[in-house]
Amino acid sequence: MRILGIDPGSGATGYGVVERRDGKLSHVAHGTVRAPRDGSAGRRLAALHAALLEVIERHRPDAACIEQVFVARGARSALVLGQARGVALAAAGAAGVAVHEYAPAHIKLSVTGNGRATKGQVQRVVQRLLSLQQLPAEDAADALAAAICHAQASPLAALGVRVRRRRRPASGPVVRVRRAP
Amino acid sequence: MRILGIDPGSGATGYGVVERRDGKLSHVAHGTVRAPRDGSAGRRLAALHAALLEVIERHRPDAACIEQVFVARGARSALVLGQARGVALAAAGAAGVAVHEYAPAHIKLSVTGNGRATKGQVQRVVQRLLSLQQLPAEDAADALAAAICHAQASPLAALGVRVRRRRRPASGPVVRVRRAP
Repeated sequence: MRILGIDPGSGATGYGVVERRDGKLSHVAHGTVRAPRDGSAGRRLAALHAALLEVIERHRPDAACIEQVFVARGARSALVLGQARGVALAAAGAAGVAVHEYAPAHIKLSVTGNGRATKGQVQRVVQRLLSLQQLPAEDAADALAAAICHAQASPLAALGVRVRRRRRPASGPVVRVRRAP
Repeated sequence: MRILGIDPGSGATGYGVVERRDGKLSHVAHGTVRAPRDGSAGRRLAALHAALLEVIERHRPDAACIEQVFVARGARSALVLGQARGVALAAAGAAGVAVHEYAPAHIKLSVTGNGRATKGQVQRVVQRLLSLQQLPAEDAADALAAAICHAQASPLAALGVRVRRRRRPASGPVVRVRRAP
């Protein structure tokens, strides 16, 4: 099973592809799509859409994964982030790839064991888990973390286990696992 | 000159195409793209992207026009609106159509003569200006209004005249016209 993680941003969008086979996780690819700085919003978003379609075409993921957004920094940045996010969702949708969403704290907990891990901690854990020679850039590390999170969640889902999240990130465990009826 | 107006929304996106020839304005097409309700966000946004590309392909506009967003209703709705808006911008960008943005009050003033016109007033004025037999739906009327606004502004732009907006919608004129140096 191949999973594409996407970390959309107005300037740079990270992506990461991991594979889970026989319970083992391996790295396929990761990178950052940078919008041309001199273009209009339309051209930049069109370039992002085309780049993500190309990533999907090349790596053919079975599923995609993206962070849920808890908008905190104000409506203006939510709008700009939403534009990049909409394009990422549309690219996955156009390729027929289902997109799963997880809360940021859920992804951090699932990958690092700490729902409040820093960006740097996520980068180092992702590097270690996937045996990468170099530290992945922040955007790409976040995207890989989202993909790893879904890779770890999906075997449970396949067994009919439902994962429930608490509403607020807490210092205790954020994930409860329940057997589906 | 053909102009496409787009009024993106999370549920429904209005579009309208007008033509300006020898100073006369005429109606080409308008409609509403409704996202399939049962689809995921990715499928809905991909459907919106495909529908707008089809509209652009069919009507081949020379320019597109969209409302500037002054986010008022909170960050959550800004994010959702941003997603649809990003897809609309990306579709225009992919087709090589430049997108122009105008403040909502500017569009209303330019079309109805009143920067604080209601939705219903915009619908009726658009119907009259374009000699439409039926009242256009709100989304489509807003999209047509954006296109009409740009059609009226662009001859000035072609003459080297710059249009400056005041920061806040006022009861007085919102548009000042200046001769570019």
